[in-house]
Amino acid sequence: MSIAIMCSGGDCSGMNPAIKTFVEYAFNHNIQPYFIYDGLEGLIDGEIKEATHNDVAGINHIGGTIIRTSRSKRFYEKEFREQAYKNLEKKGIKKIIVLGGDGSFTALDIFSREFDISFVGIPSTIDNDIAGTDYCLGVDTSLNVIRHALDEIRDTSSSFKRAFVVETMGRNCGYLALISALTSGAEVCIIPELVYDLDSIKQRLEKEIKEGRSYILAIVAEGCNNTQDIADFFEDELKIESRIQVLGHIQRGGNPSVHDRLMAYEFVTYAFKELLKDELLNHVIAYKDAKFTFIDVHTLNQHKHEIKPELLDLASILSK
Amino acid sequence: MSIAIMCSGGDCSGMNPAIKTFVEYAFNHNIQPYFIYDGLEGLIDGEIKEATHNDVAGINHIGGTIIRTSRSKRFYEKEFREQAYKNLEKKGIKKIIVLGGDGSFTALDIFSREFDISFVGIPSTIDNDIAGTDYCLGVDTSLNVIRHALDEIRDTSSSFKRAFVVETMGRNCGYLALISALTSGAEVCIIPELVYDLDSIKQRLEKEIKEGRSYILAIVAEGCNNTQDIADFFEDELKIESRIQVLGHIQRGGNPSVHDRLMAYEFVTYAFKELLKDELLNHVIAYKDAKFTFIDVHTLNQHKHEIKPELLDLASILSK
Amino acid sequence: MSIAIMCSGGDCSGMNPAIKTFVEYAFNHNIQPYFIYDGLEGLIDGEIKEATHNDVAGINHIGGTIIRTSRSKRFYEKEFREQAYKNLEKKGIKKIIVLGGDGSFTALDIFSREFDISFVGIPSTIDNDIAGTDYCLGVDTSLNVIRHALDEIRDTSSSFKRAFVVETMGRNCGYLALISALTSGAEVCIIPELVYDLDSIKQRLEKEIKEGRSYILAIVAEGCNNTQDIADFFEDELKIESRIQVLGHIQRGGNPSVHDRLMAYEFVTYAFKELLKDELLNHVIAYKDAKFTFIDVHTLNQHKHEIKPELLDLASILSK
Amino acid sequence: MSIAIMCSGGDCSGMNPAIKTFVEYAFNHNIQPYFIYDGLEGLIDGEIKEATHNDVAGINHIGGTIIRTSRSKRFYEKEFREQAYKNLEKKGIKKIIVLGGDGSFTALDIFSREFDISFVGIPSTIDNDIAGTDYCLGVDTSLNVIRHALDEIRDTSSSFKRAFVVETMGRNCGYLALISALTSGAEVCIIPELVYDLDSIKQRLEKEIKEGRSYILAIVAEGCNNTQDIADFFEDELKIESRIQVLGHIQRGGNPSVHDRLMAYEFVTYAFKELLKDELLNHVIAYKDAKFTFIDVHTLNQHKHEIKPELLDLASILSK
Repeated sequence: MSIAIMCSGGDCSGMNPAIKTFVEYAFNHNIQPYFIYDGLEGLIDGEIKEATHNDVAGINHIGGTIIRTSRSKRFYEKEFREQAYKNLEKKGIKKIIVLGGDGSFTALDIFSREFDISFVGIPSTIDNDIAGTDYCLGVDTSLNVIRHALDEIRDTSSSFKRAFVVETMGRNCGYLALISALTSGAEVCIIPELVYDLDSIKQRLEKEIKEGRSYILAIVAEGCNNTQDIADFFEDELKIESRIQVLGHIQRGGNPSVHDRLMAYEFVTYAFKELLKDELLNHVIAYKDAKFTFIDVHTLNQHKHEIKPELLDLASILSK
Repeated sequence: MSIAIMCSGGDCSGMNPAIKTFVEYAFNHNIQPYFIYDGLEGLIDGEIKEATHNDVAGINHIGGTIIRTSRSKRFYEKEFREQAYKNLEKKGIKKIIVLGGDGSFTALDIFSREFDISFVGIPSTIDNDIAGTDYCLGVDTSLNVIRHALDEIRDTSSSFKRAFVVETMGRNCGYLALISALTSGAEVCIIPELVYDLDSIKQRLEKEIKEGRSYILAIVAEGCNNTQDIADFFEDELKIESRIQVLGHIQRGGNPSVHDRLMAYEFVTYAFKELLKDELLNHVIAYKDAKFTFIDVHTLNQHKHEIKPELLDLASILSK
Repeated sequence: MSIAIMCSGGDCSGMNPAIKTFVEYAFNHNIQPYFIYDGLEGLIDGEIKEATHNDVAGINHIGGTIIRTSRSKRFYEKEFREQAYKNLEKKGIKKIIVLGGDGSFTALDIFSREFDISFVGIPSTIDNDIAGTDYCLGVDTSLNVIRHALDEIRDTSSSFKRAFVVETMGRNCGYLALISALTSGAEVCIIPELVYDLDSIKQRLEKEIKEGRSYILAIVAEGCNNTQDIADFFEDELKIESRIQVLGHIQRGGNPSVHDRLMAYEFVTYAFKELLKDELLNHVIAYKDAKFTFIDVHTLNQHKHEIKPELLDLASILSK
Repeated sequence: MSIAIMCSGGDCSGMNPAIKTFVEYAFNHNIQPYFIYDGLEGLIDGEIKEATHNDVAGINHIGGTIIRTSRSKRFYEKEFREQAYKNLEKKGIKKIIVLGGDGSFTALDIFSREFDISFVGIPSTIDNDIAGTDYCLGVDTSLNVIRHALDEIRDTSSSFKRAFVVETMGRNCGYLALISALTSGAEVCIIPELVYDLDSIKQRLEKEIKEGRSYILAIVAEGCNNTQDIADFFEDELKIESRIQVLGHIQRGGNPSVHDRLMAYEFVTYAFKELLKDELLNHVIAYKDAKFTFIDVHTLNQHKHEIKPELLDLASILSK
């Protein structure tokens, strides 16, 4: 039997440990593992190769993905999906593990309904915004990279009388910003999930400045689209010099944390076991209440990921 | 109302974020927070001080504990417990949050039964060996410190034809060794929970050496007391030069990981809420299946912490 | 005798170890050390305090400066310099060590010529752009922070077919960009000191892309003001998706490297010894050819810092 | 023309950037680069291969050496040197760059006098103990690894009333211990180059403990062979609980620092240029007073590396 692994959409740390586990698990079960390079684009173009032990030696501590990833428009067109299927057929591959997000899972779901292909999706995105799972691969590493940057920014910001407005990734989801604000002792947190109140923030901080506070750290989620406004607010309303730091792509990774390596290990092992069974599968693994389970793509698309209310409660103090 | 926090037994990363959360939560609820310095020894000697906002500014990223900790023999004697109680009485403190392990919780349990004292224990030990809870504060940071050291050791070990035998902390529990072995791609893992088979390890590695393997990484838990034996085994049986690295105290810490900061936040918030209720309390928080709950010290002492069977299964491959 | 230390202009890592050495050296020589807080602004406003051993305990590993820094317009006016002098006179301070850059040294030079004040300047700026010295405090830490970020960016950039344009700090000086490009294996380096040739870069990279190169890392110094143009060039001319990462304030710091801690030690010890002599002093220390020496501010202002020609030669390959 | 690179003796960080520079420089000058794997042992056994661009892609941030190293007894026998020469002759290699220490350079010197072989040695050892050069490749990375470990140990040691005795590498040379003690704020430093006085240390620390000091950090060089004695001294004489931490092999490395990457770059470029000249060469590069120069192996062996007297002066305070 043959089985393939691929990445799709944005990369994250933990993909390489997942790829390594995949290859080792396959060989331990006498299955030939395949790599689909360059995501859905590579699937269409037939960039499919037999994986070897050598390919995955020493990749555990490397961020990103050695088999690369892509975003694909072509895959939305049937003719390219047909082409993709033929590529898989040639290699005798009927089962795929996909590391990606909602969009990628939906694409694979369509594909698996059209053709005789089983797949299991492993939620892999630093945004942690996939419905039905408490955890997405890559989040822990990303949070620790942000923490490291915030520790450095705090040192420099406390050297001046200054406000620092730090923008984290997160298009529609403030998870990274929220956890980072809570765990780094930020004074302000602005995320899409929470209404913020600048008047009240102003009052709170004016009081603290009067009592001796000399610098302010504000964490703003990219998706709020108001990083500049918040910086202007500090300058105009609080009369404190302010600087913006967009963290950008460093958030995607680096050396995967132990948690992401272990989750990679467990996600892949769980996915593999299910794929080995005979039935057709087009499911996504969810990690829910410390247990692994499956959700179908349809259900996943009908729901929105929601941050735990307790965490929102804690963070709401920093939004007003 | 007054409430105090203390550390007891070995230190770990995450204690400082817990202490910071404790102080901030107290002030937000108009409660005077107290620090008991130097653990049970300081409790006996009356090293109890009012905590201030200033004490906890900028401590989130510092390992260990700013209020220090200790191991105490005196506390086993009633007269010293009486003395400890009087110290608390003088400050009007009836409720304590204790960051520590089994031994400390048992001591506090006795104390709270003798005197009018409530306490909540927060499991804090890098060994992750407390029954009833899936997680103990400090474990994630410790694992990441080990990972970092192993990444460096792997670079140097792969520069020679060599076996590296790395000893991790863990007196009766191989959790650190097991997770480190799984996530760092070690070839051998020796822990108290698993029977190991040197003959079978020899056969496996001889085959791999023949196929080109040039170095070996073995992780051994301190509690097995056979680090030197394993090193000798590599020299004598596999004829490969071997080196021992005892990781030692660096495992206790450094800058707390995001996970430990967040767990500190949640443990303390949960403990505090319970202590605010009127009833007498002498419980330990457990984090079980992604939920917080309480266990009493008696139950905790009757059970042994057990590593998840799936993880033992995975690691058993590395013990033979 | 009394002697003071202050920071001025941008902060950098290494300032805290310098401050610690200053305090310890003073006490070892029975001299009362003073801190001038908040740079020249604090000097004008009289924020001058006796330093204690306690102030500098455990600050070696903290980036930035615990006595803060500032940029001051007021100090250009005589009346505020008079006010500053009176503040020093009140404390009996006639000698100052200043951690800063050209502008700060010029301001202190004017000040010391008007009033009975000696000062020694310690070149402290991550730009490494002060004439006459091979090294400015903070550069090594900054370079290692950039390296760390580039290692992470490279992982994520090699996961896609992409060009990454990374902007480093450096207004008129490309030192950070140049060294980072050389030591991180970047493909392109654009700095003010070197003429660049996009046609030639295009030819070179087109050839490499044809041979299999899948991603490009370009380092651009802030002072070139063309980060966006370079990104556009990759998209338009090389038809490769491109992303910009402005590294920003994380470059200022974090935990000082051993080199910066040691240079801080040596700079301050050298400065202190000179200040202890009787003569009036208004000089800046230079580290030249592995030796410490002095230059006067006038000479310093008449020259421009120049990057070693060998290094420019090496980097010129990446500019065409 | 063909030219080879090899490592010999202990590995260190910076070897990989040196190897990468070597390969790129060779190809840029239309010279075929070769790798000699496994040091002198590999030279004897003919493990010599053509190097490719691909071999050195992405190795800059990896510690140790991808071409491995060894210690060789066989090379002291003429017959094996003859065998080694024949291996080189077969590939047309007459010029070698060697990354290693004294012993390796002496071996190569004998070899080059017997056979028609030129070599340049690049001092590469974390001990920084090679006469005539201010710097050996790998030292800066090693010092920063130690710093990182000491920062973690300090956190945990300050959580208890304790003395920590940390042993650094360094057989006959205390450079690592000395610089680490100075830059980490250790209270005690014991190195072979300095006479220490326990009575005086006792007096000094007793006074500080009386004034509030709660923990002690002592750095001891391996070569003093008295780590246990120092720990006993703290327990017996100062009545303070004490712990030993042998840093061990983590000191060899990890991700090379910018300084080591740049020194690797400059060492190799300088070595290569000299080897391209026609004359026979059997020299070692020295970095002296910020300039590169050559020393012959004979001179090198007649002298002992000496730590700068100013640094010894500074450290002597910590030895009494």
